Amino acid sequence: MGIEGLLKVGIAVKDLEEAKRLFGQVFGLASEGEDTYEPLSMRYSLSSLGNMLLELIQPTGPEGPIARFIKNHGEGLQHICFTVSDIEEVMKQLKQQGIEFVPESPFELDAAFGRAKFAFARPRAFNGVIVEFVEVVKPAA
Amino acid sequence: MGIEGLLKVGIAVKDLEEAKRLFGQVFGLASEGEDTYEPLSMRYSLSSLGNMLLELIQPTGPEGPIARFIKNHGEGLQHICFTVSDIEEVMKQLKQQGIEFVPESPFELDAAFGRAKFAFARPRAFNGVIVEFVEVVKPAA
Repeated sequence: MGIEGLLKVGIAVKDLEEAKRLFGQVFGLASEGEDTYEPLSMRYSLSSLGNMLLELIQPTGPEGPIARFIKNHGEGLQHICFTVSDIEEVMKQLKQQGIEFVPESPFELDAAFGRAKFAFARPRAFNGVIVEFVEVVKPAA
Repeated sequence: MGIEGLLKVGIAVKDLEEAKRLFGQVFGLASEGEDTYEPLSMRYSLSSLGNMLLELIQPTGPEGPIARFIKNHGEGLQHICFTVSDIEEVMKQLKQQGIEFVPESPFELDAAFGRAKFAFARPRAFNGVIVEFVEVVKPAA
């Protein structure tokens, strides 16, 4: 299916600074990239942890997927994210199996790990797990 | 702190057979080990996915941590698990930082990936994330 591996695990938190302090203290993590992404009303911080990235994500307002997740579930594990070699092909195959994506087409933007195309499968699809797919178009220098 | 890397991500599901079918179909996963662990009222299935293991976990009764998680949060991402080189040392350091474990001492048992010592940090400790630590004592042959 063209899935290459786990890129990151995302944790929804109410207070990014406090979470960075805690995970920094306990796991020795340092933020390697931090940014706000207003279309999804979120601010995130990425850190390497062993063989993957840990993403701490704070809502920047009362709307958006992170605020909604915290409202419904409380803070905690919010998504897992896999790198894929061809995101359009993966989405096409999954849609044939009845899996829905929001939005329906991948979107491209610059992330801390480079320019990439992103897609999110609806949580209902995978036993409540939000699965994110990323095709890195141009890795960060 | 002696953390080696991510071993697995655990997903709480209501129906293990259905979840295995879904993740098998979508990700091409095959179960590489399945077992019931009655002290925690759970049945789990482990599969390799890229650079880690995916653990699907079903409660075996109305009590226990998985049943409780599904009752409180619904199905979904339940824990992340890191391998450590010395679990007693990690727990000692984390306890000094005020982090609690349930139970307070690590427990040892045979898992699909070998004989190992296990410890769970209380979810409150890490912004609602259940963090599991594993020291593999004897890898599976």
